[in-house]
Amino acid sequence: MRAVAALARRSARSDTGRFLVEGPQAVRELLRYAAPSVVDLYVTAAARKRYAEVLASAHTAGCFVHDVNDEVLAAMADAQTPQGMLAVAQQPEASVESVLATGPRLLVLLQEVRDPGNLGTVIRAADAAGADAVLVSSGSVDAFSPKVVRSTAGSLFHLPVVTGLDAGATVAAVEAHGIRTYATEGEAPTRLPDADLTHPHCWVMGTEATGLPSDFAARCSERISIPIHGKAESLNLAMAATICLYASAASLPPRNPMSM
Amino acid sequence: MRAVAALARRSARSDTGRFLVEGPQAVRELLRYAAPSVVDLYVTAAARKRYAEVLASAHTAGCFVHDVNDEVLAAMADAQTPQGMLAVAQQPEASVESVLATGPRLLVLLQEVRDPGNLGTVIRAADAAGADAVLVSSGSVDAFSPKVVRSTAGSLFHLPVVTGLDAGATVAAVEAHGIRTYATEGEAPTRLPDADLTHPHCWVMGTEATGLPSDFAARCSERISIPIHGKAESLNLAMAATICLYASAASLPPRNPMSM
Repeated sequence: MRAVAALARRSARSDTGRFLVEGPQAVRELLRYAAPSVVDLYVTAAARKRYAEVLASAHTAGCFVHDVNDEVLAAMADAQTPQGMLAVAQQPEASVESVLATGPRLLVLLQEVRDPGNLGTVIRAADAAGADAVLVSSGSVDAFSPKVVRSTAGSLFHLPVVTGLDAGATVAAVEAHGIRTYATEGEAPTRLPDADLTHPHCWVMGTEATGLPSDFAARCSERISIPIHGKAESLNLAMAATICLYASAASLPPRNPMSM
Repeated sequence: MRAVAALARRSARSDTGRFLVEGPQAVRELLRYAAPSVVDLYVTAAARKRYAEVLASAHTAGCFVHDVNDEVLAAMADAQTPQGMLAVAQQPEASVESVLATGPRLLVLLQEVRDPGNLGTVIRAADAAGADAVLVSSGSVDAFSPKVVRSTAGSLFHLPVVTGLDAGATVAAVEAHGIRTYATEGEAPTRLPDADLTHPHCWVMGTEATGLPSDFAARCSERISIPIHGKAESLNLAMAATICLYASAASLPPRNPMSM
């Protein structure tokens, strides 16, 4: 029980390679898209009854299911309301190389993102926009922290999320595969509506507080700004990523033109 | 001091019509766009020094400035880090009628939004996208709660935010002014890229948990869905509003075509 609760800490996650997945919605997505990664599933009697279809897929997947009472579950959980269900899962092994080998068209690279809610929302937006992967630099919040897992609403299991990257080397690797890198910057002369989003590209976004370092942005294929029409000074990272990724989704050609 | 701290509670805000504005960035925007509404400004000695330009505009505006120490400020504040500065301000009096009288082109109406961060982000997105106002139904979180004020990052003072509305009557009033109302719904057959966003319109968005009631959505001019390209089940309210508002900003004709 203590070993499970310890997974709320980054050090325990990096020591074990495991992480917490809390609540029936997240566990359902985990079982649907990454069942082999499930190590243990803990459920209360009430949750076992209420979310019978989640338990059924856990059995189909051959998961170890443990009955626990509310107190034990609360002691293991990071969330205030884990809704009677919690899984321990193995972190997936994804790499930039494995992502690039699939011929991606839409990527996002985050440099030193600090806010868990922002990272989770970017992963969710990337999923919804049909992006092929989310790349996260070292120095960022841990993508497998309970808060990030929660705020992805299951999207963490829908597309590869590669973490601990050297941002500069990643930009070089992505560009070597013919994928343009677009640095978002408040003052960049090229505005989003004028950007060419019809070819494979990777959005590159900086930390919430200060944005991308200018010399780093200069190494990307292009710098692009999101127009501010009103009096707002800026957009937050999650909003900026959502806008850019949805602009990409609207501009990229359909993925299977033959089947249209 | 207690009367100030009480403004963290909704009942005290509705009794007095006053609200808290915390931190130098928010106070600066308040002074810039709504200086006459400032009732009192509380600053620590350190903040007085550090944010001299904010103090200068407070003096220009004739505000009552009170020196307080860190303990007193912390006791008055809702934020954990008010950064040495806090204002009490009078809530603006805005109405749907006053908004409609200005000939708006882009509005957003939120029905029973419950999450303070979501409401704050929608207000910020509406500001950035150049919307004319944000309309909020009764049964929603208070737009003047400290959490919402913080998450608007000053945008609360940049455009009218009208609260406590009857959503149905508001849709009728907006449409009577020739402004189309677009209900966002996950399953609506008209997809965002196919929507006509070139004429004045108002986005109508429902609560985070359940979306708009179907019979209410049916009363709007059109129902529109945001395409989900990946495996995500949905977008959260703030993301959905950001996508829709930026799609509108990209489609509406320039506001002053003569000056282009």
